[in-house]
Amino acid sequence: MTLLAALHKAHNCDPWTDRALHAFVLDDVQIGFVQPRVLDAIRQFLRETLSDVLVIKEDGAHDVVTLAHGTSRAQRTAAMSALVAWMRARRIFPDPLDGWRDEPYAVYARAHGSASRSHVAFTLERAACALFGFATFGVHLTAYTPDGRIWVSKRSRTKQTWPSYYDNSVAGGIIAGDAPMASMIRECYEEAGLTEEQVTPYIKQTGCISYFHKTDAGWYQPEMQFTYDLALPSTEIVLAPVDGEAESFELLDKDAVLERVETLEFKPNCALVVADFFARHGMLTFENEEHYTAILECIHTPLRLPTP
Amino acid sequence: MTLLAALHKAHNCDPWTDRALHAFVLDDVQIGFVQPRVLDAIRQFLRETLSDVLVIKEDGAHDVVTLAHGTSRAQRTAAMSALVAWMRARRIFPDPLDGWRDEPYAVYARAHGSASRSHVAFTLERAACALFGFATFGVHLTAYTPDGRIWVSKRSRTKQTWPSYYDNSVAGGIIAGDAPMASMIRECYEEAGLTEEQVTPYIKQTGCISYFHKTDAGWYQPEMQFTYDLALPSTEIVLAPVDGEAESFELLDKDAVLERVETLEFKPNCALVVADFFARHGMLTFENEEHYTAILECIHTPLRLPTP
Repeated sequence: MTLLAALHKAHNCDPWTDRALHAFVLDDVQIGFVQPRVLDAIRQFLRETLSDVLVIKEDGAHDVVTLAHGTSRAQRTAAMSALVAWMRARRIFPDPLDGWRDEPYAVYARAHGSASRSHVAFTLERAACALFGFATFGVHLTAYTPDGRIWVSKRSRTKQTWPSYYDNSVAGGIIAGDAPMASMIRECYEEAGLTEEQVTPYIKQTGCISYFHKTDAGWYQPEMQFTYDLALPSTEIVLAPVDGEAESFELLDKDAVLERVETLEFKPNCALVVADFFARHGMLTFENEEHYTAILECIHTPLRLPTP
Repeated sequence: MTLLAALHKAHNCDPWTDRALHAFVLDDVQIGFVQPRVLDAIRQFLRETLSDVLVIKEDGAHDVVTLAHGTSRAQRTAAMSALVAWMRARRIFPDPLDGWRDEPYAVYARAHGSASRSHVAFTLERAACALFGFATFGVHLTAYTPDGRIWVSKRSRTKQTWPSYYDNSVAGGIIAGDAPMASMIRECYEEAGLTEEQVTPYIKQTGCISYFHKTDAGWYQPEMQFTYDLALPSTEIVLAPVDGEAESFELLDKDAVLERVETLEFKPNCALVVADFFARHGMLTFENEEHYTAILECIHTPLRLPTP
């Protein structure tokens, strides 16, 4: 499979062009995408619970889900939490809700027409974000050695998502209240046993990638990953499993990494991080990759949703 | 001025949302944006010359300019050349045509619905591309020294565009038939006196940036710049003017470069290259820049036009 085709396993949809989706809107700014099956569930929830925070505005074929104007972050969080708990109790959407993690994610909004930085509208369980097409944010690290080899991890065979697939050196989702760099440094220890002293002198934030992923079950996941490089000073610093998320780590040369991407052995969004790393380091070039500009465009898909 | 505001001097429009524009289309794929004043000129040209290669398809408020199906690259190039020569002879659009450079640029197209690589539809004088909103492509190099200082050039005070503004270390447009890396290496010598032997061991392609620029005269310029880093091994390799495009070169530290970007002393699109360099090298981070994600999105605006 070509590299571009492999990357399209991660960025595989455009919810903005799916006419069947309804909008989740806050202060006149769209923050998510609601499928008809979810809208139906919200309608039933509202009939049963009489919530006055969560609101459906009927708008012909394209209804809008919103949260009542003037509500606080705590009120919005409580309303969304009640909705998701109700869905979970009724087992309406076992995929994705059976993947419950007890990790609150921040959902962002911003004032309409404003160029100002967005704010956290509310928090929501990680596993529930896909139900509403809310953007989620993560951190991905590529650790490499002076001889140009790259550390990759193999995901635990017992992980709910993408078991036994290759992953970047270290990666994780950003929990509400966390800043990307702090989150990245903590994950380095929890997943790979790299201490803050081993990481801090060599880690560099390098940008972010963004894309839309549609899961096999049809859920839309707008995602943005903050990327980091860790230029290890020697091969003596070794990544090793700590919390069991990663089963093992391997130090592979560039060609071996690329081959595993093209044979789809990498978790799809991790392949995007690999491509970005290769492009930034001059290993993927206009001259050696016929889909060069298409690949870069795929890595940098604008979400058109509020981001941190 | 904030960094984001400075970058919006370069990426300052979205022609896809300007309802006054007509489309330039080839094989059912849009390749440019035609303003009403240009459409009027094309109509007059067609009345006077009876060209059968260039065609206007009337489509109510939004007419479409196209080139007859089945024409060769040479025929298309001749037709566009005749149109532009006609405009130039009548001095209809002194801006931008007085900036004539005798540099043919490649205009790309691709088969409708195909994921295949695009092809060169025809070539057109560089100065004329803005008349039709055709995308243009360039190369921009950031040369830096082991102590982290960055080489910037000051554009000649006699240059037609952006005289005396700061520019990246070396930059130029890609002429039809050229590959980006070859173009970059040649510019390194022509502008800055860096020989191939000084450049080749240290140069790295790092990706590309893309954006839409609207000139003061109202012309839309979709642009993509291939970016390169040149990690010079010492401060003894010195950049110096050769062809007069650059008047002088300075070795500035990071803060001095950023300050000149924020005071708008940089040519706008070069500021985007600076921001991309800073982001890739961990100097611009989520933690130190409140508009971090907006800046990265601004640097990576999808053109939605065929690219090399």
